[in-house]
This record gives sequence, structure tokens and C-alpha cells, in this order.
Amino acid sequence: MLFIKIALAIAASPLLVSAQTFQRLGGCPTLGCIIPPDQQDFLAGQLFDIRLEVHAPVNGSEATDGQPDENFTFTIGKVGEAAQPATDFFGIDEPELETWDFSWFEDLFAEAADKPSLVNVASKIYRRVALFEPGEYEATLHYNGTNTTAYWLVRDIAEVRQTKNVLLFIGDGMTTNMITAARLIAHNQINGRYQSLMQMDKFPVLGHQMTHSLDTFITDSANSATALYTGHKSTVNALGVYADSSSDPFDDPKMETIAELFHRIYNGHVGIVSTAYIADATPAALTAHTRDRGLYPQIVDMFIHGNTNYSWTDWDGPDVLFGGGAEQFCSPDLGGETYQDLDYYEVFREAGYGVALNKTELLAAPDSERLLGIFQISNLEKWLDRNVYTDNLVGQENAPNCEGGDATDLPGLKEMTLKAIDILENRSGDEGWFIMSEAASVDKMMHAMDYDRALGELLELDDTIKASIEHLTELDALKDTLIIVTADHGHGFDVFGSVDTDYLNAQTDDRSRRDAIGPYERSGESQYIKSGSLRYSDSFFPSNWEPRWTLASGFGAHPDVRENFQVHKDGVREPASEIEGFGEDDYFVNPEDATTGFIQNGTLPKSFNQGVHSLTDVPVFAMGPCQELFGGVYNSIDVFYKMAECLGLSRSGHGEDGYGKDHGSGGRGHRGPGSHYGGPPGSRGHRSR
Amino acid sequence: MLFIKIALAIAASPLLVSAQTFQRLGGCPTLGCIIPPDQQDFLAGQLFDIRLEVHAPVNGSEATDGQPDENFTFTIGKVGEAAQPATDFFGIDEPELETWDFSWFEDLFAEAADKPSLVNVASKIYRRVALFEPGEYEATLHYNGTNTTAYWLVRDIAEVRQTKNVLLFIGDGMTTNMITAARLIAHNQINGRYQSLMQMDKFPVLGHQMTHSLDTFITDSANSATALYTGHKSTVNALGVYADSSSDPFDDPKMETIAELFHRIYNGHVGIVSTAYIADATPAALTAHTRDRGLYPQIVDMFIHGNTNYSWTDWDGPDVLFGGGAEQFCSPDLGGETYQDLDYYEVFREAGYGVALNKTELLAAPDSERLLGIFQISNLEKWLDRNVYTDNLVGQENAPNCEGGDATDLPGLKEMTLKAIDILENRSGDEGWFIMSEAASVDKMMHAMDYDRALGELLELDDTIKASIEHLTELDALKDTLIIVTADHGHGFDVFGSVDTDYLNAQTDDRSRRDAIGPYERSGESQYIKSGSLRYSDSFFPSNWEPRWTLASGFGAHPDVRENFQVHKDGVREPASEIEGFGEDDYFVNPEDATTGFIQNGTLPKSFNQGVHSLTDVPVFAMGPCQELFGGVYNSIDVFYKMAECLGLSRSGHGEDGYGKDHGSGGRGHRGPGSHYGGPPGSRGHRSR
Repeated sequence: MLFIKIALAIAASPLLVSAQTFQRLGGCPTLGCIIPPDQQDFLAGQLFDIRLEVHAPVNGSEATDGQPDENFTFTIGKVGEAAQPATDFFGIDEPELETWDFSWFEDLFAEAADKPSLVNVASKIYRRVALFEPGEYEATLHYNGTNTTAYWLVRDIAEVRQTKNVLLFIGDGMTTNMITAARLIAHNQINGRYQSLMQMDKFPVLGHQMTHSLDTFITDSANSATALYTGHKSTVNALGVYADSSSDPFDDPKMETIAELFHRIYNGHVGIVSTAYIADATPAALTAHTRDRGLYPQIVDMFIHGNTNYSWTDWDGPDVLFGGGAEQFCSPDLGGETYQDLDYYEVFREAGYGVALNKTELLAAPDSERLLGIFQISNLEKWLDRNVYTDNLVGQENAPNCEGGDATDLPGLKEMTLKAIDILENRSGDEGWFIMSEAASVDKMMHAMDYDRALGELLELDDTIKASIEHLTELDALKDTLIIVTADHGHGFDVFGSVDTDYLNAQTDDRSRRDAIGPYERSGESQYIKSGSLRYSDSFFPSNWEPRWTLASGFGAHPDVRENFQVHKDGVREPASEIEGFGEDDYFVNPEDATTGFIQNGTLPKSFNQGVHSLTDVPVFAMGPCQELFGGVYNSIDVFYKMAECLGLSRSGHGEDGYGKDHGSGGRGHRGPGSHYGGPPGSRGHRSR
Repeated sequence: MLFIKIALAIAASPLLVSAQTFQRLGGCPTLGCIIPPDQQDFLAGQLFDIRLEVHAPVNGSEATDGQPDENFTFTIGKVGEAAQPATDFFGIDEPELETWDFSWFEDLFAEAADKPSLVNVASKIYRRVALFEPGEYEATLHYNGTNTTAYWLVRDIAEVRQTKNVLLFIGDGMTTNMITAARLIAHNQINGRYQSLMQMDKFPVLGHQMTHSLDTFITDSANSATALYTGHKSTVNALGVYADSSSDPFDDPKMETIAELFHRIYNGHVGIVSTAYIADATPAALTAHTRDRGLYPQIVDMFIHGNTNYSWTDWDGPDVLFGGGAEQFCSPDLGGETYQDLDYYEVFREAGYGVALNKTELLAAPDSERLLGIFQISNLEKWLDRNVYTDNLVGQENAPNCEGGDATDLPGLKEMTLKAIDILENRSGDEGWFIMSEAASVDKMMHAMDYDRALGELLELDDTIKASIEHLTELDALKDTLIIVTADHGHGFDVFGSVDTDYLNAQTDDRSRRDAIGPYERSGESQYIKSGSLRYSDSFFPSNWEPRWTLASGFGAHPDVRENFQVHKDGVREPASEIEGFGEDDYFVNPEDATTGFIQNGTLPKSFNQGVHSLTDVPVFAMGPCQELFGGVYNSIDVFYKMAECLGLSRSGHGEDGYGKDHGSGGRGHRGPGSHYGGPPGSRGHRSR
């Protein structure tokens, strides 16, 4: 790890409330904000925006006269060289001054008392710049007679392309602890020796990555995906941008993603596959740039059109886009919520995509054309329901044409990923491809405390990895493909013993039910694989999801719940619910869930009805070209830099007018501002926190 | 992973109750038992015992006529070659027949109804044998007209010594999740970039090891240490033996440990360091061979005399033995519990050891002599109390001379380990050394749900690793030392947000207290390192253990507890206690613990007052000679085989009379049976399960 200069002005303000439950603005502990903030890393040649904000709190613990210094200036230069005004350094015009205000709560007492602190802001944003020379830069905002300095590091990375393809698997929310449990239920042991292993276990290189956010130690899928795809950490809920304090969710400073870089530099082909609704954060972060991951219609538009709000890169869509989320494609007359109320199946067709709405159509689609595959409304049905408790597929009314039928003939992550490989191999030629394939519902089922379904999703991911390796081998493409398997963040899940469910179900009080749990020497062996009659050709899944002895498992963070450690046969678990007579967002044990179990009082705020993300480092498995880069312990952003190194995406070459001034190196021209998604820039919006 | 032949007779018996909450005998699903059982691995030349048992259940689900076949025979041979009677194969006399009986409960219903199943046993044990040629062996027990076959694999390992020294650090119970949390509270981040890292983070090679037992998926520290030190998994509570069904805890079949092998083959020097009472499982397993980790007096005797019960190896004590546990050294007139009621400080002195009872004596001891260092009664005081809440050291009455004073002048893991390195370096010459250094109380404090103390112990381990690397560098010994850091097993700990303790403490009902927890974007930054005034020269620990915003952390397995996420300033936490009016071993929330917190109902049997171990794979960090062997995912026993390969401990050379017949290759003569620790072998003891 390189230790770069620490900016002088980073000492935490004497606030008692700085950088905790709430923050005035992440990455900005003082009243002058440079975004990207101090200590950020950059890829040489990577496009990004720079937002400057001067804050003038009106009230609260940081109160000033409320007049932000509108005459602030901003300089930048390499450390050890003279700083220049940014306009000179980058060869761009001075941006317009923008002003707005926002409010935030300084702590929970203030929130409970509804006493916000108001902040007036003066701001400018420099768009679509890049840094080229590796090394340290010093960026300084001069305001109010003081300054904020940010030290930025442009990494010194080789510019030789070492792999043709990258296949990035993301097990959303997947930890080592979960992989251990999945192995236990799907692979047989005899006297401690596993007779088969997870495909992930067989990877030659193992690493750990640290998942924390820019400004908080717990992350969500949006900013963690942003870190993996851009090399820049950000704030919870942000996709492909750092968060600024304006209310406009589309004006925040952007960073170029690996998909955009790969396409711009090499005309590389991109494939996006997920078991989530496709506008969900992990797939979205490859192409979306917005402060708010919940703006699904715009996110879908950005998949195909890229960022049209401001000049950015020339993006015209991935080769494949597969997942759920038909609600962002069907026209509004069928209940869809789409950008500009268009039928997005049509939008994609008009752009030359085939459209597949079920597995049959997916498998039959030609490998020579780009393909949109949307297989149902919302998230894909879970592996457990698609393969074991198939009655749960009936009556879902989730058909992707939004006409109210059931989605039958669903593909799984494996079919989607193998088809993506076929199309990308066929279409990419020497340009190569980048495919991201996400097992999204490991996380979603962990949130729901539905451990069986979560592990089923994880096993489906492992089966997909295995099949992908076999298929790439058949295509003679394995040696040209860097394969990475990682997660975006974790949940605190682990297994702590066995449960005799016959004994538990026979008890009549909670304390006696707990005696059914067998820790240590009472844990026994895995009845999920030593009993039962479910069989799979060439895949590894439990032979029994309802053994008498199940796994005692769980985590520290949960709502009120009743637990009996038995599979939820009727569909995805709902551990907590609202109760008549109590308010909204006030969750209690769901009286219809796990009725033979014992109650656990919750450990989360009562407005939470699910589990939450956890801190832990997550595993990285790597094989193929550059695999050796991925061993050891590192930060989430390092996954981006290692992929970027392997793909040869670093570009330190100077533009025509010296360094910094060519901010479109290799770009294919500029798109004008185009249509705006949100309000016009600079509107005096009031944004509550 | 090599897949070896699967024994024909391993199909689980049609029992509904096989191999679950209780087991008739781990590793023996049928009525004919070979121990070591099917699918075990061996080091070429490693001494071990073979126990055969024929079971004749009298009642219960497996009832027979109750007459075990006393005429059973046992053959062995390499796969593909003719099998021979074991007596011929090993060149030893037929052992005596032993008989006994035992009882066990087939499931929780039977236990609750106090209805045991009784089993009559006929048995023989072949002692002190070895296998030499790498490859697969087939061992068959013929009994009652049927047979049990075990396939054993002698690993084909290079016999070249590649490292002079091995320094093995064990963080007992330490997981990746805990390391992530320790990093968060002791190392500063600025905008997502860590300004310093854990020493563990800097290791060049990362692996994961699977911790499960021979016969259960959750392990304890005894059998997990056995796996790491012998390459053989075993049953919970067993040290250096496989568990047989006899009541004698010293007659179980043994396996030679890495300490014994290293000493026997190379006259290698061994150092044992722990923050536990020294008779605790993780240090004990290096030299003890017993079914019962709780037999502390005998365990201490085995540290210095080795196994004197039966012919075994010539062991005369480690060079250093440092830890707590004075209660096994002080003579009984001072309250000690020692083997044969001797003063064990005297026993060690008479064998030529110096004795240190505090840090001053430790540091002053000459490096040329063997040294016993016992610094207090019971486990070493925790880093947090030794360094921050030092008032808690007063009135402990734990002085190691057992005279009732307080142990002051305590060393930490760092001082003990650095001194061990000095002595071992000084004394070992070309023979080299193996040091095991254990941070025992990561686990003990996790059991107590005392997360602050647990992370303090983990940070002390990291500080010790750092100091050891620096010291070995100064001694020019780093390049000759393979350094490994791992755990024996995990706990399900993770962090899920922040806690505003001012807000929590101000609430008056449990559901409102929970609103103090901040998940996701409300988690904020680590106030343990961004606030506070504690400073450490050249070490990394929190500057504040009592910030307003603490970590919301925990795990899924716990007794009834009240949680307020605040440091326990008055000493080690006691989360649950017995309540007047209720029975023994019936635990409820400790009314004196975390009184401002909210209650969580327990998820463990009510007889548990602490957390328990969990399933997860644990990390392995490696640097030095052979480091590359430790990357990727593997089993706990593989840690032994990798260390054994690096030390060159494999010995495939045949004895004088052909393979198998020399069962003391390189041994220094035989010790006679000597004194027995338990009852005489073969006694018809009744052992309840």
C-alpha cells in the first residue's frame, strides 16, 4: 500500500457529531469540500468529474454567518510542481457557479426532535476531466481565507493488455462463512474428508477485499459495486458517482466504469447478467451514474444509452443484458414504470437487440446478435423454488410481458451466463469481452433470514462457475479469460450447531425448544447430503432440504423473529411484519412464520424487518491471466485496479497540449448535454437528509 | 485433493439416529470399528496406534445378541497388493483382547427420558506402528461374518527440509470477520483509505482451512489443534488421539505430533507459548495424548515427560513453556492440583529448567537454558485490563506462587514470544526450532460476548506478529523461518453498524434502545481511532475504548443476554447467570451486565451461559520458506502436511525388515509402560455418554 501525503486540513472538526450516524457530507469533514476527496486513487486516463462545495451552515453546531464564499478558487498540480488553476490544468472553461441549500440531522436526538441543521452551499463542477501521469497530485480549494487540500494518487500501472476476457462473478452478500455452509450441505464428507469440493475451493489464488464505504464502515450493494467497477469508493446508495449535497440525483460527480473504459479504449464487448431485477445496484453500477440507486427507469435507460445528461463517453449498450425486472420494461399501460413512459422492450428492439422472455427463447436466440433477456417481474425466482418447491412458482403473476400470467420456463444463472458467453465469444472477435454475472439473491435471502434459499443461490452460483469453466474450455477460451469470483459485502451469517427438529417441534415452551440445538460434539454430520433422495446429474446440491437434523444458523443483526431452523416450503421467508394496532414501520415477529420455533427479540431498529449488511472482508477467488495479482489482503478498489491492469486500461499518454489538457483521450467525440433526468443543474433544491 | 477408494461398508446404517446429536462412536457407523477410520491421511513414518472395536449393542435401535465377536481379525496391505495380518505387516505381537461396555443416548428424546442404549465391546489395540510407503492402504476388520474396510492414504511428500524454523501463531477462535473489526478500531482510515494495516494484512500468501471435526461439523480447540499438529482430525475434546469407546481416557489410539516428530527426527527444539492456562487444549495438544482435555495435571506432566503410559517417543520437554495456569504447578498444600501431588515448579527445576514467575524474571532469564514461565493462576489477564483498565488487576489473588497475592508485572503475548525466540535461537543451533504462540483469549472473550476484550487480544496477537518479524530480522533469522498465522475454529461474530450510546443509554424501553443502532449509511466512521487520547509507540490499538459511537456487533449463537454495545470496564463480561429460585445450569440474563441495554432471548440450550464455536473456514497467512504451499482453500489437516513438508518430516525409508516392520525408525529407544494415568488397560469400565 502506498502511503500518500495526508492533507493538512483533515483534522476532524471539533464537532462531537462529525462523521457518525449522520454526516453533513461524506468525505467532507470541514466546510470546504473537494470531491473526489483526499486519499483517492485514480486510473491514468480515467474520466471523472470534480465537484467543489463551500458549506455555510446556518444553525447547529457548525453555525457560520450562512454565507458561503462564492469566490472560492481551485488549483491542482503534481506534488512537487507548481499548482495551476484547474481551468488551465485541464484546459477547460470555468464552470458556472451553482447555489443551493440542504438540511441534515446532526444526530439521533436531533432527528427525534425534528430539529435539522440547514446549510447553504456554493458549488462548481468540472466535468469530464482525466489525469494522465502516474504519481501524486495536490488539489486545493481556497475559500474563506482557508483551504482544503486533497491528495490524489494516479496509480502507476502497466499498460499492456494481458487478458482477452474477464468473467467477474459476484455473489452478492456472500462470505467465506456462507461458502463453508454451502459446502457442508451439498458435498459429502466421510470422516472429515470431503468427497467433492466447491468449484470456488479449487481456484488457484485466494484473496480478501475490504468492503467499507468512502465514509461509513458498512456498505450497500450500490457503492460497493461502484468501488469494484471504478476504483473509487463512494457513499451508500450511490452508483458510479461520488455523492454531492445537491438534491439533483444526476448531477453528482461521476467516475468512468470498467465497462465504459473497456468499450472506449478497445471497443470491448460487455455482458451483464443477474438474478435480480436488472435495474438493481450490482448490474446497474456498470453503466449508471446517479446518487440514487432507486431511480430504476433512468437506470434502465442508462444501460442502453449511457449517461446522456452531460458529455461523457460514447456508450451504446451491452451485448447482453439478462435478468428480472420486467417492471422497468413493460409500458405503463401494462403497469410498467419506464423512462419517459416508453415500452423499453421496443426501445431495445429498435436499437437492434433481440428480446428473450423465457429460457426457450434465450437458448434459441442467435449468438450473432445483441440480446435483451428479461424473464419475469422483479427478482428471479429462487433456485429452491425453481428446482424443488416448484408449486411456489404458481400464481406469481410475474410473466415478463406484464400481462398477469406466471413466468414459467425460467432460466437460472447458469443458462443465462452460458448464453452470455456464447454471444460474447461470437461477437467480440479480437476485441474481447467483460461479463459480470451476479448471484443476487444470496444477499436478498440472507436479508430475509431465509438461509436455505440463500445457500441454494450460492450453490447455483458455484454450479454456474463450474459450468462456465467447462464451457470456456470447450470453446478453447479458458486460457484467454481471467475469472474472478467475489462478493460486494457480507452478512454476519454462520452455523453454530445442529438442530433436532423433531425434538424442537415437540416442545411447548421456548426455553425447551432451544435444547434441540446441538453445539460442538452434538453437531453431528450433514444430513442434507447423507439423507434424502434428490439427485442432480453433474451438479452439487443437497439431497434433502428437510432432514430431521438441520443447521443452527443465524447472525447478530435481525428484527424480532421466531426461529425453528426449518426450510420455508411455501416461499420466501418473511420473518417480521407489521401488527394491527401498531404503526407502520414498526416490526414484530411474523405470527405466520416458523410457528414451532422460539422467539428472538430483534437487535436492529424496529423499522427494520430484515437483516442488514455486515463489516467483514470478503473472499476473492481468481484463475487465469493475472491471477497472481489477486492473492493476499487488499481494498475493494484494488479489484478494479487489478482488472484494469489485466485488461490494459491504464492510459498515461498525454493529450496534445500537455498533461491534463486532453480530457477525451481516445474518446469518440462528445455527446451534448442531451436530456436531463432530474431538475436543471444549479436549481436551488432543498434536499432533506 | 486426492480421492481415495471409498470403503464398501460405509453406507450409513439404516438407523434414523446415526451420526447426529449423539453418536455411538465417531468414525464408526457400523458395528465394526477401525480407528483411524476410513479416509484418513498419514505422514510417512509417523507413529500411530490402531484400535479395533467390535460393538454388540444390547438394546436400542441397533440391538444384537449383545455378544461381540471376540475372534475378529485384522488385515492390512497396500491397495493392489496382498493383505496380511497386521501382526505380520507390522512385525509385532498380537495384542491382548480387551472387553468393556459403554452406554449412550440415541437422541435427545432418549436423553430426556434417561433411556440409554448399552453396548458391549471387544477390542484390541496395535501400538506404535507406522506406514512408510506413500500410497493407498486397505485395512480390513473381519468380524461376525462381515467386515469393515478403511482406506488410508500415506501422502507422497518430499523429504527435503526447506526451513530451519517454524513460527506458528494461533488466534484461537479468530475469523476474518474479527480481523476486519480489529483493523477498523485500531487503524485509521481517511475517506476509505487505511493509513496503516494489520501485520496479518501484509502477509504475501493467504489461504483458508476447513475446521470441521472427524465426526461433527463443529469443532472445539482440542480436536482442531490435534488436526493442525498431527494431520489427523478427531473428536471434540480429544488431544493427540482418536476417541475410542473405553472409559480410560489415556488408552485411546495416539498419533505422533509435529513437536514429537520434529524432536525425534531432527532433535528439533520446541517452544510453547500461550495466554491461556498452559494446560489448555491448544498448547496441550502438542504433547498430550488423551481423550479428555480436562485432565490438566496429567497434561502438564506430558509437557515435560511425554507419553509415559505406553511406548511412544523419546520426549523430554520443550525448550520453553510459557503461559498461565499456576494451579497445575503449585503443590496441593497451596491449593494446586498437580499430577501425583507434586510441586511442578520443582519437577521442572529438577529437569534443568529455569522458572520465571513474572515479566522481570522472564526478561532476565538466560537464553542458554530451558525456561518454564508461569505468570499467574488461570488464563492471563486480558490486554485491555493489563493496559487500559488496570484497576481490574487488583484483588485477583492470582499470583503464580499460589500464595494469594496479585499477579503484577505480567508479560503479554509479545514479551513471551520474543523471549521464546531468543531462547530457541540461542539453543537450537543448526537443529532449528518450532514455536507455537497462541492468543488464546480471542476465543475466550468471544465466548463471553466481551467483544472489546476479544478484539484487544487479537490486536495484541497482531502486535506480537509484527514484533516477531522485526526481531527475527534483527537476528538475521527471518529468511530461515516459515511464519504461519491461523485459527483453530471460529465464532460467528460480525459488525453490523454503529451504536449511538448516548442515545441508547437515554432510552427507557427496549424497542427504543434499538433505534440507537445505525446500519448502512448510518454506520459512520470508527470513533475508536478518530477520537480519544490513548497512544502507543510503534503499536496499533484504539485510542478510545469508550467512544460515543461504538460497534453494533454480535453473533447468532448466544444465551439470554442484555446488550448495550459498550465496553465492560469492570472486568471480563459475564453475560448470563443462574437466578435464585431456578435450577443449576439454567441461565438467564445477568441482571448486573449491560444494564442500559436491550434484552435478546438466547438461541442456545438454556444450560449454556456463553457463545459457542461456529462452522466457518478460517484464514491462514503465510510468509517465508514454503509460503506458496499455503495459498488457496484446504482442510485443517493440510496445515500439518504443509508444515511437515517444509520441515522435511516425511520418512518413507523402510525399516530393516521391509516395510512396516520397523516401527521405531529413528527412535531413541523405547520407554516402558511406566505409570498409568488412568485405570489399567482393558478394565471393564462403564462409560456413560
